[in-house]
Amino acid sequence: MKYDKILLDHGSGGKVSHNLTAAMMLPAFDNPILAQLNDGAILEFDGQRIAFSTDSYTVDPIFFPGGNIGDLAINGTVNDVAMCGGQPLYLSVGLIIEEGFPVRDLETIVGEMGRAAGRAGVSVVTGDTKVVPKGAVDKIFINTSGLGLIPPGVEVASHRARPGDRIILSGTIADHGITVLTQREGLSFDSGVTSDTAPLNHMVDQMFAVSNAIHVLRDPTRGGVGTALNEIAEKSAAGIRIFEEQIPLHKEVAAICELLGFDPLYLANEGKLLAFVAEADSDEVLSTVRRNPFGRDAAVIGEVVSEHPGRVVMETRIGGSRIVDMLAGEQLPRIC
Amino acid sequence: MKYDKILLDHGSGGKVSHNLTAAMMLPAFDNPILAQLNDGAILEFDGQRIAFSTDSYTVDPIFFPGGNIGDLAINGTVNDVAMCGGQPLYLSVGLIIEEGFPVRDLETIVGEMGRAAGRAGVSVVTGDTKVVPKGAVDKIFINTSGLGLIPPGVEVASHRARPGDRIILSGTIADHGITVLTQREGLSFDSGVTSDTAPLNHMVDQMFAVSNAIHVLRDPTRGGVGTALNEIAEKSAAGIRIFEEQIPLHKEVAAICELLGFDPLYLANEGKLLAFVAEADSDEVLSTVRRNPFGRDAAVIGEVVSEHPGRVVMETRIGGSRIVDMLAGEQLPRIC
Repeated sequence: MKYDKILLDHGSGGKVSHNLTAAMMLPAFDNPILAQLNDGAILEFDGQRIAFSTDSYTVDPIFFPGGNIGDLAINGTVNDVAMCGGQPLYLSVGLIIEEGFPVRDLETIVGEMGRAAGRAGVSVVTGDTKVVPKGAVDKIFINTSGLGLIPPGVEVASHRARPGDRIILSGTIADHGITVLTQREGLSFDSGVTSDTAPLNHMVDQMFAVSNAIHVLRDPTRGGVGTALNEIAEKSAAGIRIFEEQIPLHKEVAAICELLGFDPLYLANEGKLLAFVAEADSDEVLSTVRRNPFGRDAAVIGEVVSEHPGRVVMETRIGGSRIVDMLAGEQLPRIC
Repeated sequence: MKYDKILLDHGSGGKVSHNLTAAMMLPAFDNPILAQLNDGAILEFDGQRIAFSTDSYTVDPIFFPGGNIGDLAINGTVNDVAMCGGQPLYLSVGLIIEEGFPVRDLETIVGEMGRAAGRAGVSVVTGDTKVVPKGAVDKIFINTSGLGLIPPGVEVASHRARPGDRIILSGTIADHGITVLTQREGLSFDSGVTSDTAPLNHMVDQMFAVSNAIHVLRDPTRGGVGTALNEIAEKSAAGIRIFEEQIPLHKEVAAICELLGFDPLYLANEGKLLAFVAEADSDEVLSTVRRNPFGRDAAVIGEVVSEHPGRVVMETRIGGSRIVDMLAGEQLPRIC
């Protein structure tokens, strides 16, 4: 390891955290399922494929416009399971709560988790609650793990992008990242922007109902669209070309990014997906996504090319092109 | 709710935390699987039964004689799955690390997790690493969730204890609790006691190989043997009678409990199980447990009776009897 101490960058989802995973986790837990490094693991139980995923939520603040740490934790794991091609069915919930946390806030969070589970059609079937002394955790952290059944015929994975695939993005980017950012202490201004946290599993079901040529699904959370596309380009050993003017972006979000110097391509989304779809099916998948309430602003933002394998290149609005690299580290800690 | 703020007691595994679960979690996540409140959920996938369990580990200190937070987190979830009758196969690992945490310590912890997974015969197939700014978490917390297949014919649950069942305890109690306690800042004295953290799944396999009359399995972690027995008595609507002099207890542990005023019946164990077994099979199960390296000190500590349903009564060493109640709250926070 290049470092003596763990940095925020090690949890960013960017290059530094990939290196930590490769240098420490893969050797320690050496097995072929983990080595695939998808959003979740795909397990076989007597011929049935089950997607299994876990995520810890440490978002600060815990309440923000459009959601709170509770529905974020449910939707996030529902989406990770869905991005493996799984139909999410069961979730676990692990709460770590700081002593002195207001019971009323916990009721709000847990209540919202229950409603989010209901919307996604999943059951929270097991859980654990730990309370730690004041100062040992900041308010509340939540882990959710999820299980879903992968229907026969569904085969999605980060390494399956192929030249010719169209890249569908289900809506505007950076809404969650900017919402949390503007709520942070010292940066609070009333932007009117809200988090996009939402369950995407029903959308995915609808997509598979019209196409069996969906090759990659990914929800661009930590690290945003830029990081997710880089991972896919690398694992598929394919080039990715995207078009800046096709990428849906709220005007307010664009303005705040400009003002604060953030690139929306690297900001977190919590209710968006990227789908890599064979060209022949891409129109129908796109219109299917657009009919879903969480996909109204969906667009084809690019394509997979045989040039520059492993690289993501963006045609900019002003007619140039630039490489969209993977960030080394963290733009915003505790974004989810 | 009776309280405005969350107390350490809400995470104790005792009465107050049971009330929180009943008042808040069950209504929010209303479903029949969660309502069974076993160590894990039992899920059906096309006729196959899968045990699914989750636990967050916040132990302080993170290194202690006999183990560290890493092998504790692996063994703990392996055991929870095993206590559902499941053969643990797959684990997820969610790390929440404080910025500045020494990389070398993380390597030790993750390495030990890998070795613990190897010993238990499980694969860590998916994970998540979050790094939070200094002060937002104390060093490192770990969540593990686990999956295991329940073999046909295995039926264990807290409500299945029946009058006549013998209660087998697989070894000495309170070792983990006393170890962590004596390591705590200000209480550090060299006791020679070590944590009992260990995987119990192979022991459980061996037990099922000799008996199909094991009705209840439980690892008495937070809250100890006293709390676990109370839960079983309550759910089975049966009386439990135990014999103080039959309960295995290290001399050093007994001495420290005496000195500090802790009751070993309520201290955490991390490598012990309670098994409720039909009388006819109890001798064979006991000798099977004793042949396992983690069960050498196993003993029959009591029996299920038709008197005093829902209550645990202990015949004391001096010939009296006392009710072993469930504690209201927390003896020791961050014990696991």
